Amino acid sequence: MSQVFAGIEAGGTKWVCMIANHPEDIRATTRFPTRDPEETISTAIEFIRNHIRNPEDLRGLGIGSFGPLDLKKDSPTYGFLTTTPKPGWANTDLISPFQKEFNLSIGFDTDVNAAALGEYRWGAGRGLSDFIYLTVGTGIGGAAIVNHSLIHGMIHPEMGHILIPHDWEHDPFAGVCPYHGDCLEGLATGPAIKARWGQPAEDLPPDHPAWQLEAHYLGLGIANLIATLSPQRVILGGGVMDQTQLFPMIREEVRELLGDYISAMDILEANEEYIVPPVLGTQAGVLGAVALAQQAAEA
Amino acid sequence: MSQVFAGIEAGGTKWVCMIANHPEDIRATTRFPTRDPEETISTAIEFIRNHIRNPEDLRGLGIGSFGPLDLKKDSPTYGFLTTTPKPGWANTDLISPFQKEFNLSIGFDTDVNAAALGEYRWGAGRGLSDFIYLTVGTGIGGAAIVNHSLIHGMIHPEMGHILIPHDWEHDPFAGVCPYHGDCLEGLATGPAIKARWGQPAEDLPPDHPAWQLEAHYLGLGIANLIATLSPQRVILGGGVMDQTQLFPMIREEVRELLGDYISAMDILEANEEYIVPPVLGTQAGVLGAVALAQQAAEA
Repeated sequence: MSQVFAGIEAGGTKWVCMIANHPEDIRATTRFPTRDPEETISTAIEFIRNHIRNPEDLRGLGIGSFGPLDLKKDSPTYGFLTTTPKPGWANTDLISPFQKEFNLSIGFDTDVNAAALGEYRWGAGRGLSDFIYLTVGTGIGGAAIVNHSLIHGMIHPEMGHILIPHDWEHDPFAGVCPYHGDCLEGLATGPAIKARWGQPAEDLPPDHPAWQLEAHYLGLGIANLIATLSPQRVILGGGVMDQTQLFPMIREEVRELLGDYISAMDILEANEEYIVPPVLGTQAGVLGAVALAQQAAEA
Repeated sequence: MSQVFAGIEAGGTKWVCMIANHPEDIRATTRFPTRDPEETISTAIEFIRNHIRNPEDLRGLGIGSFGPLDLKKDSPTYGFLTTTPKPGWANTDLISPFQKEFNLSIGFDTDVNAAALGEYRWGAGRGLSDFIYLTVGTGIGGAAIVNHSLIHGMIHPEMGHILIPHDWEHDPFAGVCPYHGDCLEGLATGPAIKARWGQPAEDLPPDHPAWQLEAHYLGLGIANLIATLSPQRVILGGGVMDQTQLFPMIREEVRELLGDYISAMDILEANEEYIVPPVLGTQAGVLGAVALAQQAAEA
């Protein structure tokens, strides 16, 4: 067996592990529920060990994790999950156990940054210098590639928490974000849709008014992100975006919200290629972790 | 005379030209009202010619201009002002006249990108990898350095046009943006303040309620930019920010708006160094053009 990379998508409810070189060369994949840190990490290590013949076959390892994370490389708790409310997981060191076991440099980033990097290498962001990746599911996560690199800044973006106009008369729903109430995440995640309409998003028919309102809020958020980042493309993933009827509705909202002002953008001519689903689909996260592994090995 | 750089801040009402190497080595400066393109450009060329002894003393030239601009290097109209409503200036080639005269590569960018670059080289952004520069005056312009480089993306950011919550009951003012009405620029520029309160911003006393509302809107905009870009610092310049009482009010608004969620950021501890005025003050723009000249010469 030739050399390969390992990627781990570390989620709050499940972990996905993969041995691969790229999307067309996937050697093995597994997914299992997130238990306590020790057991979960052991399961991942076990999977990797079982799928490489010799230790030296493993060229790199990448982890894209749920957060909040300490991503400051010079911090004593670099690679830790920090203040997560998930029982048992606060202050968990996600890097050291793998480093001890496999003795190589480890790529580490947020789950959404990993997914964006996966799309950059092999998906809808390929060949672009600047794009946004948003995932809309139980939360709203955002990542951006700017000048061919991920934004980290002081910590990492929290694009789900931008504040948008909320017409209380038209939509008296207060929002579900425990921090800000009616920020983008508070108004437009899966749980917000469920709380507003009294039934799970996936049970609402495609012509339900929930989707027009959802497209409106996502359109507002995306218009703000476009005005801030001037991206060449916007990639929308996550469970809520499985409702593919949202794409044309969101494109229309964004077009209207930007107005004539940003018409110079190719948005109007190539709208259907401007706001798109991820090419890697549900594998964006774990393939992104493989991309993190490659990036760490190249560094 | 040793070698020097020329910087031009090309504004809609005035141009500022400078011969310099850095803020402590400024050889000459001039400013003059913007007339028609030919006359204005000739005046700038004349100034530069008069302040260099030999043509080879000029090592580089940079232009930071009002927009909208064509910044795509592979475009046939690269370096042009495009659709500006300013009479006589639409489709003006800003680069070729200088290139013909001085025969060197020319740094070219928006006025606000130039100012941000100036702050990055010599001002409040020095040593930072990621920061935001906002100018609040007759318009609101925004630029960001991400991973040590300016964001351009598909065109350039238009941060003034992000959409923020607007409580119509508390503030029934409709906003002055001709494109979006009550976007950030529509609610919080100098002309918006004047239109809302019936007198020029600079005539309102520091304890006028106008400033609390102004701090609120700017706080909303800045909170969104922080959530998107995770900057290490936010620099606020422009005429409206001459009202220095705004700084503590804006810091308080941002702190409240971000909530506990982004408390991991050093914002809370070092708030006074987080949201700051530009170090280069009103010279940020033209010194930024000098920085563009240096960047072009180094490339």
